[in-house]
Amino acid sequence: MNIHPTAIVSDKAIIDNNVRIGAYTIIYDNVEIAENTVIEAFCEIGVTNNFSNGDKLYIGANSHIRSHSIFYEGSSFLESLITGHRVTVREKVRAGKNLQIGTLSDLQGHCEIGDFVRLHSNVHIGQKSKIGNFVWIFPYVVLTNDPHPPSDTLLGVTVEDYAVIATMSVILPGTIISNGCLIGAHSSVKGITEANTVYAGSPAKKICPTSKIKLNDESGDAYPWRKHFHRGYPEEMIKLWMSE
Amino acid sequence: MNIHPTAIVSDKAIIDNNVRIGAYTIIYDNVEIAENTVIEAFCEIGVTNNFSNGDKLYIGANSHIRSHSIFYEGSSFLESLITGHRVTVREKVRAGKNLQIGTLSDLQGHCEIGDFVRLHSNVHIGQKSKIGNFVWIFPYVVLTNDPHPPSDTLLGVTVEDYAVIATMSVILPGTIISNGCLIGAHSSVKGITEANTVYAGSPAKKICPTSKIKLNDESGDAYPWRKHFHRGYPEEMIKLWMSE
Amino acid sequence: MNIHPTAIVSDKAIIDNNVRIGAYTIIYDNVEIAENTVIEAFCEIGVTNNFSNGDKLYIGANSHIRSHSIFYEGSSFLESLITGHRVTVREKVRAGKNLQIGTLSDLQGHCEIGDFVRLHSNVHIGQKSKIGNFVWIFPYVVLTNDPHPPSDTLLGVTVEDYAVIATMSVILPGTIISNGCLIGAHSSVKGITEANTVYAGSPAKKICPTSKIKLNDESGDAYPWRKHFHRGYPEEMIKLWMSE
Repeated sequence: MNIHPTAIVSDKAIIDNNVRIGAYTIIYDNVEIAENTVIEAFCEIGVTNNFSNGDKLYIGANSHIRSHSIFYEGSSFLESLITGHRVTVREKVRAGKNLQIGTLSDLQGHCEIGDFVRLHSNVHIGQKSKIGNFVWIFPYVVLTNDPHPPSDTLLGVTVEDYAVIATMSVILPGTIISNGCLIGAHSSVKGITEANTVYAGSPAKKICPTSKIKLNDESGDAYPWRKHFHRGYPEEMIKLWMSE
Repeated sequence: MNIHPTAIVSDKAIIDNNVRIGAYTIIYDNVEIAENTVIEAFCEIGVTNNFSNGDKLYIGANSHIRSHSIFYEGSSFLESLITGHRVTVREKVRAGKNLQIGTLSDLQGHCEIGDFVRLHSNVHIGQKSKIGNFVWIFPYVVLTNDPHPPSDTLLGVTVEDYAVIATMSVILPGTIISNGCLIGAHSSVKGITEANTVYAGSPAKKICPTSKIKLNDESGDAYPWRKHFHRGYPEEMIKLWMSE
Repeated sequence: MNIHPTAIVSDKAIIDNNVRIGAYTIIYDNVEIAENTVIEAFCEIGVTNNFSNGDKLYIGANSHIRSHSIFYEGSSFLESLITGHRVTVREKVRAGKNLQIGTLSDLQGHCEIGDFVRLHSNVHIGQKSKIGNFVWIFPYVVLTNDPHPPSDTLLGVTVEDYAVIATMSVILPGTIISNGCLIGAHSSVKGITEANTVYAGSPAKKICPTSKIKLNDESGDAYPWRKHFHRGYPEEMIKLWMSE
């Protein structure tokens, strides 16, 4: 362990081998941080709250939480979580491995997230969201949940595997972004989308199959993106994708 | 008082009974914090500036300011202010009681806010805004003020009682969102709206009276929301609303 | 020098005369801060990273970086940089003098910025952006760069001198916002715009020459804004503008 002398770390927190904790960071009681994880400066990890049922915060091995980030108790992240700066993550997030959360993103809690998901900067994930595997969500996208604000009804958004939501789109309550869909920038989407289809506009309309979109350099199809974009994915995954 | 040993608290600040101040928080000189208030970690309370005319920052009783928040001197908040994390509040905000300000929201100062207002996450309130009572503003909404940017003219937005502005809408300078209006998500609104009316789109158009919108569970009308949504409001207020 | 006793300042950092460093701020090794600069509390200045080629962070004279801000090593800013709170600035930003960066703005690095540029609150500048001189970018604007997200292609946005981009607009990859253009609020823009022209909508359309827009108070033309808006610019610049 490598804990900066200005960090405030609870005796009750479980901290595994080779964890590094930065200056001025606060680690509260109800936390388990697995091995080889870095928590940078000015973070708060394991903030207590009334909605966590006393569940601990679990941060998987080989994770990296950048500075000024806040995680509540009651959420869990499998290995290799990577965050930008100033992320806020509330209770009852259940996330898979290799999640990336960009700077300023805000996970409101009570949601499920699969493996290898990429949330870019300043993304807002409302409660009751369900996000599959290999999903990409770009800056200033909001997943909403209240069909008649303000009300007591929460209808979360579902985003299926490989789907992509471009910058500054709003996904309305109860919407299903289906497998492999692309939502264009600055759209608002409501309802159930067809798989592998482009939607854009506000309100969003069906534009075309994603297979119609070509890469700018004319090297081939832009979608499914997993055929050409491989940065940060494991070898065996890439092999599988190329053999599909 | 319960002040964390790492907090830096000015001798000149007025701090009432049973106030709790978190780790690494800085309280400057020109501040009054009323009783039973919690200021969490990493906050700056009462930042000096050139536009406050030397007015102090007043935080009413029973307030809760979450971590990493910044308040300038020269603003005042009546009792039971509650904030999320990383809120930024500049000088010359005059706010009533029971205001909630969500994580990442940015109040640019020089504005008026009534009682029981709810600002959700990442809301931007431009200078010269006037917000009534029982207003709801959802994530990524911006209240603007400059009709010809950049200019020396500031035309603030007015939001009247009970109005609701849904996610990621822009309210253009000088606009009046009238009593009980609902602005749909991802809209941009200009001009004077009719009371109790739905507007949506970019540019926003009049859609229908709010009374036409039914709750998803078919339990009745969605608006006025005060007839069915009561979380966090005082008993006597709810009684009044139900008897209207 | 005036360094708060709780600040953590590397011996290797070069800090010129009359620099002030606030409480709990961290200054890393590979940094040069020129004279008369203020770095407020809770900042991180010169964060190491793998993409800076070992280049230092240079902050020009007479700068003011507000609290909770994060600057990576490998960027440079000429004199009189002013920031709001919680700005995030990554590596390989090359910026001119008198840049203002508003609260919560996020510069993703690998971009060029001219002199006297004004980025308001919560602006997101993607990698490969090129911003000229005297540009104004208003809250919640995003300059994107990936034409087929996710891909390995980065096509940055260009914003030419005197251009203005109003609140919550998305500028799509490879777009050129030409000299003196005005982009209306809540627009999405793609392609090459004509100089001194208003574009608005999503997708944005050409509206009219900027010269057609009059100031609200009927005192004259709203554009070019440099004919009537002079706050914060040097005397000789204003003289030049008035004699054009």
